Amino acid sequence: MLFFDCTTAPNPRRVRMIIAEKRLEIETRELSIANGEQLSPDFLAINPRGTLPVLVTEAGQALSETVAIASYLEDLHPEPSLMGQGAEEKAAVLNWNAVIEQQGGQAIFDAFRNSHPAMKGRAIPGPADYAQIPDLAERSRQRVNAFFELLEARLQQSPFIATNRFTLADISCFVMVEFARVIKMRIPQGNPATLAWYEHICERPSASV
Amino acid sequence: MLFFDCTTAPNPRRVRMIIAEKRLEIETRELSIANGEQLSPDFLAINPRGTLPVLVTEAGQALSETVAIASYLEDLHPEPSLMGQGAEEKAAVLNWNAVIEQQGGQAIFDAFRNSHPAMKGRAIPGPADYAQIPDLAERSRQRVNAFFELLEARLQQSPFIATNRFTLADISCFVMVEFARVIKMRIPQGNPATLAWYEHICERPSASV
Repeated sequence: MLFFDCTTAPNPRRVRMIIAEKRLEIETRELSIANGEQLSPDFLAINPRGTLPVLVTEAGQALSETVAIASYLEDLHPEPSLMGQGAEEKAAVLNWNAVIEQQGGQAIFDAFRNSHPAMKGRAIPGPADYAQIPDLAERSRQRVNAFFELLEARLQQSPFIATNRFTLADISCFVMVEFARVIKMRIPQGNPATLAWYEHICERPSASV
Repeated sequence: MLFFDCTTAPNPRRVRMIIAEKRLEIETRELSIANGEQLSPDFLAINPRGTLPVLVTEAGQALSETVAIASYLEDLHPEPSLMGQGAEEKAAVLNWNAVIEQQGGQAIFDAFRNSHPAMKGRAIPGPADYAQIPDLAERSRQRVNAFFELLEARLQQSPFIATNRFTLADISCFVMVEFARVIKMRIPQGNPATLAWYEHICERPSASV
């Protein structure tokens, strides 16, 4: 197994947290997105979409999506479970992880990639260049505000995102919320359930990877 | 179990295909997105994000994400498998399903919702109104072209999207490709592997639901 990481990017951080929670040792290679190393011919031969993270499985399959990497590592190392157990809980984790990715992650990434000077001409990850759209950055910031309200409503009802224990959905949400710093957005001070959840996740050793 | 469907929308169609492939009978309620029924107070009490499909599970959980609904139905009715068997194949299905959703579905939806007159002020699904961004529609069309090339490269190597048999990833891809008609984009005539795959899926009974 081989993990292609990038310590400055949010999605690889989700995988590092999974690995830390499961206490695994996986051979890791660091690539620099800042230097464009994810677009080198060698890496594009592994992942033609030029995105990180990638986990190359024992059978040699290159997984580029966090949810797939999480599923694979869960099957090989079921404990501690991050993907849920039983039909209802497994569905809850996949459901909330997708909601977090779409309502939170996508909005934060779009706001960042369509406004940050370092992302000029690089509004979409991957080998092709796409121009920034300032209006999309602004609309996405409105969506991040809506996401924080969605999160507060959920965490008023549940101690963790998907179920009554820590799962992949918490990892995804924690990493997205921390990454929102790049667009200067944070959990609103008026959202006590989210702030309490955030402090709680910060205490886990995996939060510092 | 209760399935909230909308026969005019692509994501509910993915769930209908899953149900058809597994030959299940699930109580179904049709909502009209054209009439805004997904934003009624009654439905928002079930899914506050106001999106379709929704599957209410036996425990009363409202699942709004196709991948979660697929996981739940697979656990209850494992055959025929649509989510893969074994760590490698399960990861392949989740990985390709996510790639199809992001590189294909997201681009097609963004192109549609940011350009179609019926979507004016409704560029993002859900209870909040967001203005259309014409530049995003145009950029997304470029991405759909890139998606068709990604698909052709994959299907030159593999008879189905994720693995050597029909899975959720094929359902997602087939529904997205058919939905691209709303933005007047189709599989390019120069992409023989994709056209052959498409004809093959069209022959399945589930393709007509």
